[in-house]
Amino acid sequence: MNTSPYISPELKVGILGGGQLARMLALSGHRLGLIPIIFSESKDDPAAQVTPHHFSGKISDSLALGRFIESCDIVTFESEFIDGVILSELSKKLNKNVLPDPLLMSSLRDRLYQKEFFKKYKLPTASYRPIASKSELDSAFKELGKKLVLKKRLFGYDGYGTYFLSSGSQLDPKINLQDANGYIAEETISFKRELALIIARDQFGTFVSYPLVESRQTQARCDWVRGPEKHPKLLDLIKKLKKFLAQTNYVGVMGIELFDTGGELLINEIAPRVHNTGHYTESACDFDQFLIHMMCVTGYKIPQPKILAKGFAMTNLIGSQDGHAHWDRSLKSPLFWYGKRENRPGRKMGHINSIDKNPKIALKLALQARTKVKI
Amino acid sequence: MNTSPYISPELKVGILGGGQLARMLALSGHRLGLIPIIFSESKDDPAAQVTPHHFSGKISDSLALGRFIESCDIVTFESEFIDGVILSELSKKLNKNVLPDPLLMSSLRDRLYQKEFFKKYKLPTASYRPIASKSELDSAFKELGKKLVLKKRLFGYDGYGTYFLSSGSQLDPKINLQDANGYIAEETISFKRELALIIARDQFGTFVSYPLVESRQTQARCDWVRGPEKHPKLLDLIKKLKKFLAQTNYVGVMGIELFDTGGELLINEIAPRVHNTGHYTESACDFDQFLIHMMCVTGYKIPQPKILAKGFAMTNLIGSQDGHAHWDRSLKSPLFWYGKRENRPGRKMGHINSIDKNPKIALKLALQARTKVKI
Repeated sequence: MNTSPYISPELKVGILGGGQLARMLALSGHRLGLIPIIFSESKDDPAAQVTPHHFSGKISDSLALGRFIESCDIVTFESEFIDGVILSELSKKLNKNVLPDPLLMSSLRDRLYQKEFFKKYKLPTASYRPIASKSELDSAFKELGKKLVLKKRLFGYDGYGTYFLSSGSQLDPKINLQDANGYIAEETISFKRELALIIARDQFGTFVSYPLVESRQTQARCDWVRGPEKHPKLLDLIKKLKKFLAQTNYVGVMGIELFDTGGELLINEIAPRVHNTGHYTESACDFDQFLIHMMCVTGYKIPQPKILAKGFAMTNLIGSQDGHAHWDRSLKSPLFWYGKRENRPGRKMGHINSIDKNPKIALKLALQARTKVKI
Repeated sequence: MNTSPYISPELKVGILGGGQLARMLALSGHRLGLIPIIFSESKDDPAAQVTPHHFSGKISDSLALGRFIESCDIVTFESEFIDGVILSELSKKLNKNVLPDPLLMSSLRDRLYQKEFFKKYKLPTASYRPIASKSELDSAFKELGKKLVLKKRLFGYDGYGTYFLSSGSQLDPKINLQDANGYIAEETISFKRELALIIARDQFGTFVSYPLVESRQTQARCDWVRGPEKHPKLLDLIKKLKKFLAQTNYVGVMGIELFDTGGELLINEIAPRVHNTGHYTESACDFDQFLIHMMCVTGYKIPQPKILAKGFAMTNLIGSQDGHAHWDRSLKSPLFWYGKRENRPGRKMGHINSIDKNPKIALKLALQARTKVKI
């Protein structure tokens, strides 16, 4: 923990990863006068384009990782697809803070441990079973229902590693239940809509939360977000999340994906990092999620972000073909572009934010603007 | 003029200058997916810290300038302290757009020509006389009053090159009335407060204006800005400014400094670039002045920026001593830091924005936050 009463500029903040989340973290770092250093494979990566400081390396190369961490004052990451154990050892050995804590991140990225955290902190979520064999899957069908969601414990994202199973049907040949990383099976939740929430905690224990938003997924990718939304169980959930972050000493931003079943607010998944469903904060808040994350990891006491718009929305710009993006010159909503030089189908290329007095109109504006972008 | 119906990313946008205005332009460029390239003397300059693309050179070195312009798709600048004639020739020779038009910039940066533009477009301003000799100064005292403001026609900023003269007093030995660049003398305006306005025009002729703000100067440097403010003559002024920009085919953001005499709204000075009094737009608007400028020069049709806060303020962080900056970790208002590694008395190191329902409280919050920053 930073025990100085003052923040100083010129902190070299290492960011592991070169994608759009790292890019937006680096841009917020510049705003704070920090020196962001990107660790990624190529200096053409989105984040490497926005700072002169790039360290080329593979995230699996612990020697390169060590040299990188040594060159920074403090390190954070854009993705949980890193070996937390190695990261934690390097952090101790080199006496450099990595935040959020890599061992905690390492547990949270595992869908089974994540579920066990939910249980421990009484965070409402779908029932689940760890699955490592056909017989465990059969039992799960008996106990949790005839339709299950099977998820790889590790490295799932944007629908990859997630399978919807029906009792008695043939298993997808891609599924190997003996896979060393394992699976969990979840009961199928019948939900009215998906919601999402960005929360954060600093090194002094200050906890803040952004507004609840609705998030629509299309082909397992975030299509749009709209807010603010309400839910009768929100305050109770926030109370529990605050306790969860305090007791695990989590530092940084966390993204929470939720199911609204009507009466209940169930956690689908959490991500120990800035999150796609929080991009709207760049246009709707005085302190956005990227700024708040950088403040958390560099020793600021974070303020409660103010919401500047009665309604806001965000829509992703997702590649639909190979080639170059181009768009109408008269776009009226704020556009954020990740600097990826080539479209690919399914690739997140950028996003559009919009604001309005009415959240529904904000979303309409964002979706209208998106029709003018050809990717 | 860009005649394609679409904008494409990957435009290499050259920015002449390496200071904080160029830094914030570059950051907005990243947001739009553009490739900002900085031309400045040192890669430690504030703007050079936020992009991997830096071109080392002196602004007076036209060979270096030519090589730089050749490497860009389009060029803009953060300061009017550039030779517009050379810039214009290079632009034509190399067939690269420089925006705003360098010849227009070159006229506008000259306080005498600036005044003549005001006259031509019926823009209200203090009476003035060109001054190149003691006898012209004596006549000016007779015609404009016993107290005059003498300004160098070129290269004045933050009070440098501005002198307050009383009839009959000794001339400051720094003033050489035969200086080749010359002077103008202005009548002294008795004003209630200083105001400021940011306006912009794109390549399609779209004109937008941000809210009127009050700006307080201390030791000839902008101390704080607060808004929105009202003035009965504002609409009339905007109408004239719109015509001025249209008829001169100005492209980009322009900063307007104003005197409020009560009944009248007089233009003090204009700057053909983004402006310190517009930094509040980063926190109070969906499209800030830097983004709008980058959109203007890269061929966007600009939207009318939305104001997100009922009240907003900005205060500059100005060095008061040599050394390093440090600040309280619990700052509650958005902080923007320019990455200057050393304080110097009078040096603009960063700024703080704040928002509130009430502009007066917004200003109070910004000034309170400033007390926690030691520079």
